[in-house]
Parts: sequence; structure tokens; C-alpha cells
Amino acid sequence: MSSYKKAGVDLEKNSKLKEVIKARVRETFTKNVVGDIGLFGGLFDVSEFKLYEQPVLVASTDGVGTKLAVAKAMDKWDTVGMDLVNHCINDILVQGAKPLFFLDYMAAQRLEPKITSQIIKGLAAACKEAGVALIGGETAEMPGTYVPGEYDLAGTIIGVVEKKDIVDGSKIGLGDIIIGIPSSGLHTNGYSLARKALSDAGITIDSKPTELKTTIGEALLAPHRSYFSQVYPLRNIIKGMAHITGGGFDENIPRVLPKGLCANIDKKSWAVPPLFRLIWQKGGIAEHEMYRTFNMGIGMVLIVSQKDESFILGKIPGSARIGTINKGSEVRYV
Amino acid sequence: MSSYKKAGVDLEKNSKLKEVIKARVRETFTKNVVGDIGLFGGLFDVSEFKLYEQPVLVASTDGVGTKLAVAKAMDKWDTVGMDLVNHCINDILVQGAKPLFFLDYMAAQRLEPKITSQIIKGLAAACKEAGVALIGGETAEMPGTYVPGEYDLAGTIIGVVEKKDIVDGSKIGLGDIIIGIPSSGLHTNGYSLARKALSDAGITIDSKPTELKTTIGEALLAPHRSYFSQVYPLRNIIKGMAHITGGGFDENIPRVLPKGLCANIDKKSWAVPPLFRLIWQKGGIAEHEMYRTFNMGIGMVLIVSQKDESFILGKIPGSARIGTINKGSEVRYV
Repeated sequence: MSSYKKAGVDLEKNSKLKEVIKARVRETFTKNVVGDIGLFGGLFDVSEFKLYEQPVLVASTDGVGTKLAVAKAMDKWDTVGMDLVNHCINDILVQGAKPLFFLDYMAAQRLEPKITSQIIKGLAAACKEAGVALIGGETAEMPGTYVPGEYDLAGTIIGVVEKKDIVDGSKIGLGDIIIGIPSSGLHTNGYSLARKALSDAGITIDSKPTELKTTIGEALLAPHRSYFSQVYPLRNIIKGMAHITGGGFDENIPRVLPKGLCANIDKKSWAVPPLFRLIWQKGGIAEHEMYRTFNMGIGMVLIVSQKDESFILGKIPGSARIGTINKGSEVRYV
Repeated sequence: MSSYKKAGVDLEKNSKLKEVIKARVRETFTKNVVGDIGLFGGLFDVSEFKLYEQPVLVASTDGVGTKLAVAKAMDKWDTVGMDLVNHCINDILVQGAKPLFFLDYMAAQRLEPKITSQIIKGLAAACKEAGVALIGGETAEMPGTYVPGEYDLAGTIIGVVEKKDIVDGSKIGLGDIIIGIPSSGLHTNGYSLARKALSDAGITIDSKPTELKTTIGEALLAPHRSYFSQVYPLRNIIKGMAHITGGGFDENIPRVLPKGLCANIDKKSWAVPPLFRLIWQKGGIAEHEMYRTFNMGIGMVLIVSQKDESFILGKIPGSARIGTINKGSEVRYV
């Protein structure tokens, strides 16, 4: 006799897991959430959109990528949950959006309750921190699809912005200033290359190189920083923003530049943090590949008028001018 | 020298893939979509929510599960895209929601452009069919996480419902009628068990059992049916709905039943389709396990007043009374 359990999907264990998940998730519920967990879809009341002239929903789906392999090596699974939520918050923040709610997707060959509940704990903590309701999610056990012991984690965020206030880069002009805000580490991009570079050089997650204050594993696992609380209040004087994710400066900054303009980035204007320099040096990676893969210490880029520069620099500790807008296209390093 | 390509993630190939994806995706764009593809988040204008008294967003994330293994065995990847969209449409339809937009997540050890574009083609076709805009998505290559050649596919749908019109089962009463609407096959649940049962019995995807009009592979791959066009216009006279997905009748119908009421399902009221009977028989699966894993030929359940029964049966070809609401709890088979 076949049973679903034998075929690799344990429905009863999933039911227990659901109870753990529910408790964490309820903690994120804002006043907008309608009903309880267990409905087919999550419900979110948007009657307050009446206060907007033209409300526009902003949505983004993202994953954590192979940062999960670091979580596994460290057997620490809460921070990848935070990474995912904060990554998504930043992705819609760059268009001026306030995040409203989040849904996650988690899959493995077999979901271990301990690991799953740690991930949910991290997701819920980051959601709660940002006032985002975790209104749905899906867990899947897929025997044969996932390498045993490996997890994938993705999520979708929905936010709102007033149409006339969408930050889209269209007002960016010649001579505007590029401000960089520090990242907390690799955030959630470049882990395949970073892991290969370090492991090829014989550097394990337990190593504690003199350049770092922590082990390699701890440094790699540093949670993705959310820029929401600092940047959102300034959105009306920011002309363009780029979240520096996969593709680095080269692929992300041009997404907001009007035609005919380029971003001149002064690489000497900030110190590339030790973790990036270590990966760079130990991996023997070409400089241009570093800048198109990693955030190099700058996780968020704001493009502003010269007149607003000092006000914004004063509002965001650690931020600095890292370049200017010039004639041309794409990104140029000077 | 390390490179991102060597480490298993080919950024350049991904850029080409993005162009293929963009063309398909643009075809789904409704008038509400703001801007073009390539922004950090997808933008969807909801100014029309002003026509609602209290608009409520309904959101759901789901995956296709191991139906993907059948797609792989058949080397046919468009229908799983349709499965995913239609599954999500049905999941929010049961609360009375109209779907607005969709975002997908697709991951593998390595994304083959041919496969990825077929999946996107299916996603876009189902979105277009339902008037749903495909406004975002994420693709990820995760060396070491996925078994080579295997894919995972998940997605998130967002819809809207007027708060007072949310279908939540609260008006369900004693003597109400349970109507079943046929499924088109296994939809997207129970594939791990189905595949194991069939393969243990030596039945391959190429087999063409006399009971079926198609090969096993074709029958297993039949796209998940969307009930939107038939059911949505009737939402105001439907008291409760259940999308029969993982957990079958037993887990899905109780989600909409008020306390003190149970669903009496008359198993003799419809013919279990040949594919289910084949899996059942060849797998030597217990009857109760069949009914709590598969949809058994009924993909959507509506609970309605006796007075509305004949009107609804007349509007939905193939629908039939499959049970009644009685005192008790959960699902009872009679």
C-alpha cells in the first residue's frame, strides 16, 4: 500500500507545523488584516486608499538565493527570513512605496519543523519591525526536486504609493548628486561567487580572518538591512533610488537613469568593507566583476539635487556622496 | 580566477532570458499597469477602488508541486504555468475575489531558456485568459539547492473583493446544498503519491491504459481548471466555496463551515474519473487516503441555499449536487 507519507510528503507533520507558523504570523497582523489564518487567501482591508488621489500598488517577488547555504552551514535560519522581507521592502521603497503585506514561499525535499519555524520567526520579526502583515504563505515538500537538506525561500511584498509621488528617476538631471548608504554585508546577492571564492581558498565559515571582527560565517550571514525607516520620510525630495542587488551598480543604477545621462561613481569615496576585499583578493576576482556582482558596501543609492544633498546626508548616518550624474549612459567608474 | 559563470550563475544568459520573458509578459498588461517591465517593483493602479465601499485585497501564494516532475518527463512546460495561475485564481475566487495581478517565482540549479520561456508562455496565457496582469517575477539559479534538471515554480496572486461581499461560509445553514464542479484531472495536488503509485505498478507516462483516452502522461498533465468565469458571476448567491486542493475534501470543505455543521458528501453522486480509479487501484491506496489527497473528480465545491440550487446547476454545465449540510463537524461520507 502506498501512502502520502511514504511518497515523501508527511501531511500530519505539516499540520503541526502549521500551528507553529500561525502563532508567529498572528503577531504581525495589523488592523487592516481581515479574518484569521486558514482562509484560502489572506485578506487586507484597503479602505484607507480613499485618502489617496490615485493609489498605485507596488509588488515585488524575490528570493534569498544561496545565502541559504550559509544559513545551513551555520545552522541558523532566522536571519534569512529577515533578509527576504528587508530585501523586498527595499525593492519597492525605491519607487516610493510603503509596504503593506507579505506572503512567503518555502520549499525543501522535507521541511524540518525546527528549521521552518526559525525561518518563519525571522520573517515575522522583520514584518513586525516594518509594520508589514504576513498574510499568507505556502510550504511545499518536493521529494526529488530539492537536494536533501537544502531549502528555498522566496516571498512577495505588496505596498502602495500615490501615483504622482512615484519615484521613477524621470526628474534626474545633469549635476545631480549620487548618495550611497552603507550595506550591512553582502545582503542577499553574490553568495554563489563568494562561497566559491572563499572555499577554493580554503577559508571555512569558522575562520576568523584578522580583517573581520567575526567569523566568516557570521559576516556572510549578517541580515540584509532595511532602508525603509530612514529613506521613506525623505521620498519626496529624492529623484531616483536604486537598491543595489544582483548585478551591482552596473545593472541597478541605470534602471532609474533618464536617457542621455550616466552615473559617475567615485570608487575612492567610500571604503570597501573587509569582507568584500577578502572575497575579491582570495578569489582573484576581476574588479569589474566585483562591482557588477556585489554591493561593495553600498546597499542603497539615492539620486538628489545638489541643494538637498547636505540635508539628506545629515538625516542618514553613514551616508556619503559617492558620485554625480553626467552626460552619457550606464555607470562609469572614476 | 573565479567568475560568477563558473560558480554556477550565468548573468549574461539571464539577460537574454529576460528579453524573452518581457515580450510574453507585456501581452498580459491591462490598463491598470503603470510603466514598463524592468522597474524594481511592478506597478498597478487601483484608483478604481474608489467605486468600492470597503475594498479588501485578497492574496494567495501557491506552488505547482511535483506536477513539475511530470512536465519534465513529458518535456512539456507550458501547462504548469497555466496550472499555477489557475490554482491561484481559484484560491481567491472562493472568497469572492476578482483577480488583478500575478507575480511568479521560478528556480532551478540552472534555468534553461527553452524551458523557462515555455513556463512563462503558459503563465502569460492563463493570465491573459483571465484578464490578470503578470506584473513581476523572479528567476533564480541555485547550484547545490536543486537537483540538476528539476525546477520549482510558485506564484502570488492579488485580487479584490468588496468587504460586505466576502464569501466566508458564515451564512451556511442546516439543509444547504453542496454542489460539486468537475475537475479537469488531478489539478496540482497529490502528484507525489500518484507518481509513486503508478511507477511502483510499472506504469510509465507513455502507457495508454484502456480506461483513458490519452497516455498517462497527458492525463497527469491536464491543466488545472479555472472556475472564475463560471463562478464569479454567481458569487452573491453562493454561501461558501472550497477549492479542492491538497488535503482533498476533508481539509478544504471544513475551512468554510460554521461550527456545529458538517458536510455530508454522497460519494455515489458522481463518477470518480478513470485516472483517479487507476491510481487508487494500482497503488492499493486506502479509500480515505484517496479522498484526503486527491480532488476525486470534483475541483470546486459550492454551498448554496436549496432555493438557488437549480438555478446554479443550470448555469454551470457538469455541476451536480454532491451532498448536504447537516449537524456535526468536518466531512462525513454517506
